[in-house]
Amino acid sequence: MRKNPLDIPLRDLIRFVEEDSPFGDITTSAIIPDSDCSAKIITRQDCVVAGLAEVIRLAIHYRISCFSCVSDGQVLAAGDTVLSWSGSAHAILLLERTALNLLGRMSGIATAARKTVEEVRTINPSCRVAVTRKTAPGLRVADKKAAIIGGAEPHRFSLSDAILIKDNHLALVSLPIAVECAVSFSPYRVVEVEVEDAESACIAAEQGAGIILLDNMDPAALQHTLDLLSARGLRDRVKVEISGGINPDSLSAYARLSIDIISLGFLTHSVSQVDMSLTILSPRDQ
Amino acid sequence: MRKNPLDIPLRDLIRFVEEDSPFGDITTSAIIPDSDCSAKIITRQDCVVAGLAEVIRLAIHYRISCFSCVSDGQVLAAGDTVLSWSGSAHAILLLERTALNLLGRMSGIATAARKTVEEVRTINPSCRVAVTRKTAPGLRVADKKAAIIGGAEPHRFSLSDAILIKDNHLALVSLPIAVECAVSFSPYRVVEVEVEDAESACIAAEQGAGIILLDNMDPAALQHTLDLLSARGLRDRVKVEISGGINPDSLSAYARLSIDIISLGFLTHSVSQVDMSLTILSPRDQ
Amino acid sequence: MRKNPLDIPLRDLIRFVEEDSPFGDITTSAIIPDSDCSAKIITRQDCVVAGLAEVIRLAIHYRISCFSCVSDGQVLAAGDTVLSWSGSAHAILLLERTALNLLGRMSGIATAARKTVEEVRTINPSCRVAVTRKTAPGLRVADKKAAIIGGAEPHRFSLSDAILIKDNHLALVSLPIAVECAVSFSPYRVVEVEVEDAESACIAAEQGAGIILLDNMDPAALQHTLDLLSARGLRDRVKVEISGGINPDSLSAYARLSIDIISLGFLTHSVSQVDMSLTILSPRDQ
Amino acid sequence: MRKNPLDIPLRDLIRFVEEDSPFGDITTSAIIPDSDCSAKIITRQDCVVAGLAEVIRLAIHYRISCFSCVSDGQVLAAGDTVLSWSGSAHAILLLERTALNLLGRMSGIATAARKTVEEVRTINPSCRVAVTRKTAPGLRVADKKAAIIGGAEPHRFSLSDAILIKDNHLALVSLPIAVECAVSFSPYRVVEVEVEDAESACIAAEQGAGIILLDNMDPAALQHTLDLLSARGLRDRVKVEISGGINPDSLSAYARLSIDIISLGFLTHSVSQVDMSLTILSPRDQ
Amino acid sequence: MRKNPLDIPLRDLIRFVEEDSPFGDITTSAIIPDSDCSAKIITRQDCVVAGLAEVIRLAIHYRISCFSCVSDGQVLAAGDTVLSWSGSAHAILLLERTALNLLGRMSGIATAARKTVEEVRTINPSCRVAVTRKTAPGLRVADKKAAIIGGAEPHRFSLSDAILIKDNHLALVSLPIAVECAVSFSPYRVVEVEVEDAESACIAAEQGAGIILLDNMDPAALQHTLDLLSARGLRDRVKVEISGGINPDSLSAYARLSIDIISLGFLTHSVSQVDMSLTILSPRDQ
Amino acid sequence: MRKNPLDIPLRDLIRFVEEDSPFGDITTSAIIPDSDCSAKIITRQDCVVAGLAEVIRLAIHYRISCFSCVSDGQVLAAGDTVLSWSGSAHAILLLERTALNLLGRMSGIATAARKTVEEVRTINPSCRVAVTRKTAPGLRVADKKAAIIGGAEPHRFSLSDAILIKDNHLALVSLPIAVECAVSFSPYRVVEVEVEDAESACIAAEQGAGIILLDNMDPAALQHTLDLLSARGLRDRVKVEISGGINPDSLSAYARLSIDIISLGFLTHSVSQVDMSLTILSPRDQ
Repeated sequence: MRKNPLDIPLRDLIRFVEEDSPFGDITTSAIIPDSDCSAKIITRQDCVVAGLAEVIRLAIHYRISCFSCVSDGQVLAAGDTVLSWSGSAHAILLLERTALNLLGRMSGIATAARKTVEEVRTINPSCRVAVTRKTAPGLRVADKKAAIIGGAEPHRFSLSDAILIKDNHLALVSLPIAVECAVSFSPYRVVEVEVEDAESACIAAEQGAGIILLDNMDPAALQHTLDLLSARGLRDRVKVEISGGINPDSLSAYARLSIDIISLGFLTHSVSQVDMSLTILSPRDQ
Repeated sequence: MRKNPLDIPLRDLIRFVEEDSPFGDITTSAIIPDSDCSAKIITRQDCVVAGLAEVIRLAIHYRISCFSCVSDGQVLAAGDTVLSWSGSAHAILLLERTALNLLGRMSGIATAARKTVEEVRTINPSCRVAVTRKTAPGLRVADKKAAIIGGAEPHRFSLSDAILIKDNHLALVSLPIAVECAVSFSPYRVVEVEVEDAESACIAAEQGAGIILLDNMDPAALQHTLDLLSARGLRDRVKVEISGGINPDSLSAYARLSIDIISLGFLTHSVSQVDMSLTILSPRDQ
Repeated sequence: MRKNPLDIPLRDLIRFVEEDSPFGDITTSAIIPDSDCSAKIITRQDCVVAGLAEVIRLAIHYRISCFSCVSDGQVLAAGDTVLSWSGSAHAILLLERTALNLLGRMSGIATAARKTVEEVRTINPSCRVAVTRKTAPGLRVADKKAAIIGGAEPHRFSLSDAILIKDNHLALVSLPIAVECAVSFSPYRVVEVEVEDAESACIAAEQGAGIILLDNMDPAALQHTLDLLSARGLRDRVKVEISGGINPDSLSAYARLSIDIISLGFLTHSVSQVDMSLTILSPRDQ
Repeated sequence: MRKNPLDIPLRDLIRFVEEDSPFGDITTSAIIPDSDCSAKIITRQDCVVAGLAEVIRLAIHYRISCFSCVSDGQVLAAGDTVLSWSGSAHAILLLERTALNLLGRMSGIATAARKTVEEVRTINPSCRVAVTRKTAPGLRVADKKAAIIGGAEPHRFSLSDAILIKDNHLALVSLPIAVECAVSFSPYRVVEVEVEDAESACIAAEQGAGIILLDNMDPAALQHTLDLLSARGLRDRVKVEISGGINPDSLSAYARLSIDIISLGFLTHSVSQVDMSLTILSPRDQ
Repeated sequence: MRKNPLDIPLRDLIRFVEEDSPFGDITTSAIIPDSDCSAKIITRQDCVVAGLAEVIRLAIHYRISCFSCVSDGQVLAAGDTVLSWSGSAHAILLLERTALNLLGRMSGIATAARKTVEEVRTINPSCRVAVTRKTAPGLRVADKKAAIIGGAEPHRFSLSDAILIKDNHLALVSLPIAVECAVSFSPYRVVEVEVEDAESACIAAEQGAGIILLDNMDPAALQHTLDLLSARGLRDRVKVEISGGINPDSLSAYARLSIDIISLGFLTHSVSQVDMSLTILSPRDQ
Repeated sequence: MRKNPLDIPLRDLIRFVEEDSPFGDITTSAIIPDSDCSAKIITRQDCVVAGLAEVIRLAIHYRISCFSCVSDGQVLAAGDTVLSWSGSAHAILLLERTALNLLGRMSGIATAARKTVEEVRTINPSCRVAVTRKTAPGLRVADKKAAIIGGAEPHRFSLSDAILIKDNHLALVSLPIAVECAVSFSPYRVVEVEVEDAESACIAAEQGAGIILLDNMDPAALQHTLDLLSARGLRDRVKVEISGGINPDSLSAYARLSIDIISLGFLTHSVSQVDMSLTILSPRDQ
């Protein structure tokens, strides 16, 4: 099983708590003398859990003991316990919303990713599902990690790690020159080229691109492009990725094509948080 | 017209760019000699635009000139130009994704907020729509600002600004004591109490709470509670807020009640980014 | 008893040490081989101690063991031990001045606050003493926390948590409009209005302000204003706060009025540090 | 004239504003549409102004134009204008309290320093007045700069810049060894030794200390020590600094001694802010 | 011409100045009243200049005007002017050492890189010279940028951008499994494998590695490996990189081999700063 | 034995790791399931080890257990073990390069410093070897600490701790005035003056400078200056430091002079990292 390559730095996790309490938690301060208690976080929806490693590191920093039977990537049913906490009531209430927001968002991404990956693999077992850089600002690591936990391919983390030539580059430089420059740029970087028609796809493949991204093409146009690449003996030289206009409804029509990767923005740009809640256990519940 | 009380610090905006380019933009470096160019950001969906002030401040920091005919809060139609940029091609391509992600998320929240506010006001002109603290981690300011731009009430910014007694507090302290402590805590803070039944609502109101949050109650139970508050002469002493289980489909049934505020988590916890795109203008387009 | 809602982040506490030693402690490095020792911090003045929680967290971070019989808010006599430390001599000497400066300032504020609160309560048991935002730059959390420990009301923490309309606002907008806008701004925020005459106080109260701040008025003018508010049936609708020109000498004359809150800048803007000292215990002292 | 060697980094100045407005200025947002206006900062007390350079840099960062006829170190009378601002009303109101707190504290230190320096110099023209490291946590640069502006000697900025052997060091190592190690530590660092009796002063001077700090000695004991140093031919080898128990009342008795430096904690540890205020100018005032 | 993909953030450049002046520049403060002056930075050695873009951005931030006839990557002779400054004498003296240290280090790396690249290309025009991650801690961006300016290939910027399987990985997992996992990990990442013998090289190539890093092999062993790869038809499938034990003296022996890349640690781990100096121009020099 | 006065803040050490892994270690993630293992760091060259304290603090932060028989400043032979680690394989591989870069650079400086100090002391036992501020940007603390560990004098840490009047100051102010201002600036700061001829040296000494820095003079000119200082009775009043044009080859000719300090830029500006490596121990090695 693939490991998660990413960890949100503790400093950022603390910052999330601080943005929720620049001058402390006045409600709790006003009404509750601090004492130790227990609490549990439960999911109210079926989900693939993600963010657990982060929430545990954060809670430990605030001297809350953590206990959990599950781990990131596991499938949970509505009502399942995600994590149990034991420690200062003030600390638990301080972290409650931050923990739920983090778990909720990351699990939301992981759950959608898992669902999509499974749907695609049922139709086309060798096809990968990739996420894009359309993440929430400041949450690149969290969003990419959640997608990986859900089984998706993280694609580029940032502008620094792989080359992807897009339409806006091609407004400034011609396709053949762009690909040639990119291929000669560095042997340590993959070169991907986004094109919108079959002929350009062939040019990019001939120039040495490693991945062709066919953007905003319908299944028929995609099939035509794949055929042309094959006819010219270029199909085996490249991976083929598709993107643009693919949503949950149209996904299966695209997955049937003999492509390598489907990349999808909605997995991170339109996230529904998984609904989770924290409950302080009163003595008789413990 | 109400002004927006919030600005994302420039330092955070720069951080968003840096997370997208820890070692620069290798694609652009590889294939394009830097030169000046123009670009425009267009929305592909009808929307209420938000995040424009932030994107302009960020672009100016990178020495990109900005021109726009619209401002935050304005309604745009698909195809409308949001913002025009003029400056270094390298700088424009470096900021492209960060700008679109920020505009997309904030406009997504503003658009959903506006739609909901209008729907509620049509039914109940004096009823407010509030957002909760279920925001993306690290994006509290951005998400609250976007909601305000959309016409929603921002509710608490954080645990530090108003008192809200919730079920987890009441697991540790009784309702009457909690409200009494909260009311005596500070004259500078509003006291709100979350309850789930009519009798508790009356106790909270009698103890001096300023706002009663009726959580997870169906319209019938809510009506019963409002009636009981009125019968006991408590209705005018408090604002009544409702939350829990309210979604776009059920919204109108709730909005009909004579309540003051509907607070909704989905406006920030389940955001769909507005689809916007940036286009580099080639000479003949300019 | 009311809890303290605030903690200075550890990161800031460490920064205080680093500003005192950008390149280490050259004296100690030059003359003392490191070894374990004990030390105690003693107060040289009667005081209400504050800052202890911060100093303990900081010392633990530098692996110094802490032992104390007292806690924040306790009254100490000159000569009493505040805190005992045990650990590396180098670490203890590195932290000495930072710890004393923090304890000294926070205890200075807490002591002055306690004295004032007690003086006011002897005369007027239901009157609160509030501090303002006239704190040392960068020390808002520390100064407010110390005031709370001393028994004072913290008032607004910042410009973000409650509405206070002041003379500079009224130079730009009329009083009735200002109050009306403020009251309709948000049900989650208290609205306070600063006025300097009785008639304005009545207007603010009529418009729905929750707190009237009578600024720079002498006791006679204040009494007149209170009388007018009562005569118009407005006194019970609002809390009345006074400020301006109140110093330790004139305090009792003001406290006799039937007001709700006296807010005082001098508690934080003119602080005398409590004199405390740290003593390394030589073997025979231990 | 000696220049000020210190500047508070802009980043820290911005942090001061942010601690006063984590979620913006809700009052101003609620009631005032933004527009340009003018404002002036006036001192309500006679003072030596300090902090002006910082407030100007900060205001410029928020696009407020600054105009001032005075500069740091100048003596002002109550009622004098310190600084005029012109710009966005929202920006001016956002910065008002931070600017006044910074000017007030720094001017408070500068004013007290100037007064003390003048008093000492009248009696003993060659005697310097130094401040200690008893500054507000996080404000070392601001407090030292203000003292310099007031004419005081800043003494050590931190533990990293000069050697000062104190009682707590001498609890761990003998005086002769401590001084010997310190003198041989580095030719680039001055060595100062704190002693509490005449004999120790002579030992320190003999071992090569450059400055002897006579701590907590009354004028008679100090005179005896000075005599003994002279008798043994050591007085010319060292500078003599005194500290401890010196307050405004006893200052003149100490200043009469033929010493080189008087160091005083109260100049920074017990600061009274100078009372300054900002006034928005309505059209007819401008 | 390849552009430089990297910029050191301004925040880090400012930090370099602040580490050189936590409490200002006391020498200049003590002896020089501030006034405007000019200065020029001259190289005392032949060099390829690098760091100029950074020093200019930094100087502008301190309001120093910059003028230069050269740009990063240009070859300079001893005595040539690198950059002219005009502005506050205090600012120029504050930045002098930081600017020289940054220019000196980056030019040192660029100069060594250029020399090595030219030596290799003379012998083997298609062979690249790459630098490793053996950079100074905290200076990854600066060191890589300088190497790029000198004409070298930057190789991996960090552990996050390409896959490189090394001996320490192979202590924990077998070579075939490691390569198989790596190749299937992501189509967006190049897979490189470090081996120390010909047989392992063939296994890695067969499993699909894109680059084979032959480490610590002498020219004869390298030739044998290249021959074996060719004999098995694997040579064209992979790039071949060599490293280990290659120094300026032995470089030419290695460059003769038909390899693709030579990677060299000494270009960044053993840097000699180029000797540059700043001279304040007195009036008659200007 | 002199202690090291400096510690690199943990926050900076973590930053070094983060610059090497903005999105994690993708190689290790791709191919190795995490498990505990051991590793040892070995030096491949004779050296004086430095940086060990830093690497141990960093490793502990990542929950790696450390064991070492050596400590900073100890002489090691090629092949000696520097440090043993035990913990998560993922954590060990994440830190490998950062640890080696830090140990390598700091040990490189310490080793060169020790060698130079010993060479000088053999010739002139009372002569110190000092390093300059020609350090790598951002690494002032690390470079100075390494030099101290190697036995060198750290000289000024920054512009804030001692006064050094150089040629660029003297372009703006005359020598006698500069020295007079500097001497009167503060009794807590040493005053050093850089001159390039014998007459200036005498002027500086007469004006009260504590250290004369004779820059860029050959041994004959230096001897002449020393003779002139003696002839005028000034030699005993000052320490004499020399710098400029001194390299390993010419060192002994300079060391023979009766000077107090030789300061050398090359010890920090032209560092060769000590070659160290980390080896994961497979079960049979442990």
